Order: sequence, then C-alpha cells, then structure tokens
Amino acid sequence: MTGTLRIVGLGPGAEGLITPDAQAAIDAATDIVGYIPYVKRIAPRPGLTLHASDNRVEMDRAAHALSMTAEGKHVVVVSSGDPGVFAMAAAIFEALEGRPDWQALDIEVLPGITAMLAAAARIGAPLGHDFAAINLSDNLKPWEEVTRRLRHAARGGFAMAFYNPRSKSRPHQFGEALAVLKEELPGSVPIFFARAVTTPDEAIRTVTLDEAKPEMADMRTVVLVGTAATRAVGRFHYTPRSVPEAGV
Amino acid sequence: MTGTLRIVGLGPGAEGLITPDAQAAIDAATDIVGYIPYVKRIAPRPGLTLHASDNRVEMDRAAHALSMTAEGKHVVVVSSGDPGVFAMAAAIFEALEGRPDWQALDIEVLPGITAMLAAAARIGAPLGHDFAAINLSDNLKPWEEVTRRLRHAARGGFAMAFYNPRSKSRPHQFGEALAVLKEELPGSVPIFFARAVTTPDEAIRTVTLDEAKPEMADMRTVVLVGTAATRAVGRFHYTPRSVPEAGV
Repeated sequence: MTGTLRIVGLGPGAEGLITPDAQAAIDAATDIVGYIPYVKRIAPRPGLTLHASDNRVEMDRAAHALSMTAEGKHVVVVSSGDPGVFAMAAAIFEALEGRPDWQALDIEVLPGITAMLAAAARIGAPLGHDFAAINLSDNLKPWEEVTRRLRHAARGGFAMAFYNPRSKSRPHQFGEALAVLKEELPGSVPIFFARAVTTPDEAIRTVTLDEAKPEMADMRTVVLVGTAATRAVGRFHYTPRSVPEAGV
Repeated sequence: MTGTLRIVGLGPGAEGLITPDAQAAIDAATDIVGYIPYVKRIAPRPGLTLHASDNRVEMDRAAHALSMTAEGKHVVVVSSGDPGVFAMAAAIFEALEGRPDWQALDIEVLPGITAMLAAAARIGAPLGHDFAAINLSDNLKPWEEVTRRLRHAARGGFAMAFYNPRSKSRPHQFGEALAVLKEELPGSVPIFFARAVTTPDEAIRTVTLDEAKPEMADMRTVVLVGTAATRAVGRFHYTPRSVPEAGV
C-alpha cells in the first residue's frame, strides 16, 4: 500500500469556502493531522483517525505526518486558510530535509482561501493593489527583522496583511508594529481588524491608523492596512488600481 | 425584484478549486459579466445570459454589471483567481464612486484561490514566509513606481509574486524588472515561472535569477521569486519559516 500526503488548506472557516479538491482529499484520508482547532473542523467517521496537536509543535506534527505516510496511510495535514501562507506546508518541507526516503513520497499541497483574502472580500478591495503579507510573530525571526520589513512595505506603498498580530505570549509586539507604521504612514490610513472571518464569531472593525490600538487584535485576527490611497465608498473600502504619476 | 451583485473568483482554472460559495452564486445568476476567457469557463444554461467583454474595459464592464443589478438582475462578475487581487473588485468599487444609488445595492465579494497560491502549492512552499504581490503592468501606474516597489520588496527580504509580468503590448518591462532584481538579490535566488497553473496547459519552470529571461513569461504566467533563503528539498522548493538572528 502506497501512502499519500496531502497538505490541505481549509479556508478561513466557512464550509462554503472549502474547495472541492480539499474536501475530496479529506474524504479519502485515513489520518488527519493538525492543530487542535483545525482538526475539530473535520467530521469524524469510521476509518478516519484524527491526530490533533497543540500549537508550536509544527515540526513534530510534520514528522508524524510523514512517518505515517511512509507506513502507507493516506494522511491529510490540515491548516486554516492556505497551507503555504504561514502554515504547515513550509514545516513539512523542512521536515523532509535530510530524509531522502521521505522525499520520494507522494506529496501534494492543495491551496485554500487564505484569511487576508477572505477579510479583504468582506471589506471591499483593500488589497486591490500591490500588497505585502507579513507574519508579525517573532517566534522564528528577530523582531528587528519584522519592523525592518514593515518599514520597507510602508515606504514601498504596499497595502499590508498581518498574520499572527498578537498572542498571549507576545502581547507587546503589535503595539510596537503600530508605532512603526505611525512613523511611516499618514495617520488617516485605514486599518481593518478582521476577527474570525466567515465564522459565526466574525467581527470586522475599521479605524484609522491614528485610532488603532493593540488590543483591537487577538490571535484570531488578521489585520489589513490600507495605503494612503485607500478610500471608502458606501459601506466598502478599496485601494484603487491606479497610481498617479507623482507616486503614492 | 431586488437585484444582487456577486463579485466572484473562479480560482486559477481547475474545477476542483472553485469554492462551493462561488459555484452557488453562479448557479443563482441571471447574468454573468467578465473578460472573455473567464466567461468561457461558465456553462451556458437557459435563463443565464453571458456578457463577455474584451480586456482593458474594466470600468465599462463594472458599470454594466451595476446597472443590470439596479434593474433587478442577479449579476455575477467573474474574475480568474481572487477578485480582490488585481481583478474586478477594485474596478467595481471605483465605479460605485459618485453613485449613491448604486452603493445601496446588495453587493458581495466572494474570494477565490489566487494564482500565486495555486502556483506556490505546485512548487512546494516558496511563499512560506513574508511575501509581496506586485502587478507588473504599468497600464495604471508609472513604471518607476513598479521598480521602486521591487527594490523595497527585495531589500525587505520578501518573497514575491508578479502578476501580469508581460504582454504583447508591454514586451520590455519584465526584462527591466529582472535587471532590477539582479541588482538587489543574489543571482542564485530561485525564480518560478508558473504558466496556466491547474489547467491542461500548466507548465512550471524553475531557474535561478541569473538564468531568468524575459521570454520565460507571458500573459498567462505568474512569476514567483524566492528569497536568499529559499531552497530545494527533493522536487520541491520552499522558503523556511525561520529567519536567523543575522537577518536574511
């Protein structure tokens, strides 16, 4: 029996945003591996084993999934959103390094609707022009590298999406990130706090950069930052496709 | 009869990547509006009128969709990928400006799998860390603004995805973009030319920045650019989640 590993994105939360390809992989699986709240989204059924693990054990989880695949199981690793955006795909490939036996396995990544795009859709089109996606967590990179990237994104005129803006173990960094943005961008730039998008807990709050406060974000929030050109039209906000000759 | 406007992303091409929400909107539509090749992806049926239009008429198309919605039709505007990523959503909101009557219409954006994430999934996880999405077309922004953004993205250590890298009417810009990247990044950085991802015409080519040539891209190609840290593992490439203390 030849195992398979599918690294699947479940989208932001709504059933209607799970792709048919992702659903088919889940339906064919013998084993589901992932972070506890994502595994909870999978319906139990006979013949399917659910392996839920805690946060911050990505490498153990990746090795476990690969090891079961090598044993012939049909393994699906689930992430919220898209598996390639600050999620499990990179961890799986990291775990493949130095294991040529595992590298020959039947592995595929199946994309999903990532949180920033689901949030943008609710807001209008705030990422309607060039944008940068930044993981604000400094668990795996120096905080100075995060702020350096924020400055380049702001100076480049990019709209931005922040993943993992704030958690219990990192309560202060997001305030520092906002302070950096306030140095680089007009205070009138709109910021969107999109929490639990497309779930029953969804809450979207729009403020200006001047009004933004760290406690508006938590670990279920994706934060979108407009550019100086982002504007309201009716109940929506969008970033125009055009950039005038003078630049932003 | 109250009209509805749904701004829908069809994903990159594969049927299995069209979300159930997008399919439901298409199934409920009376009118489909979009660029010719995207409207071709919609199956004709009685009661459904297909309105296909040429490229570069986004504002006419947006006004037409809004006008039919105001008449009570159930209109779906289709884009490839995600409608909020260099696609029709921003054009619709632009067309809403100065039309308070249209702003009260029932309008929703439904996200889709955008090309860069489908391409990344095929490659491994090249966007596995912070990344920037850049529209290389200078139809609506000065070319100098494009190159300025390329430099900020490169200096910030972002992986990159380029949409609209090259077309018949803009044959030279992509070569200039590659020249800018060669000034800013090591020549060993991997570049991925992902053409017609998830369609029968799919072709993915991986080269180094030193080897990259403008003619490797056409208007159906999304180009992904790794960082200095992006590396191969087996048949995949990925950008590690970690950034060492010294920075990239």
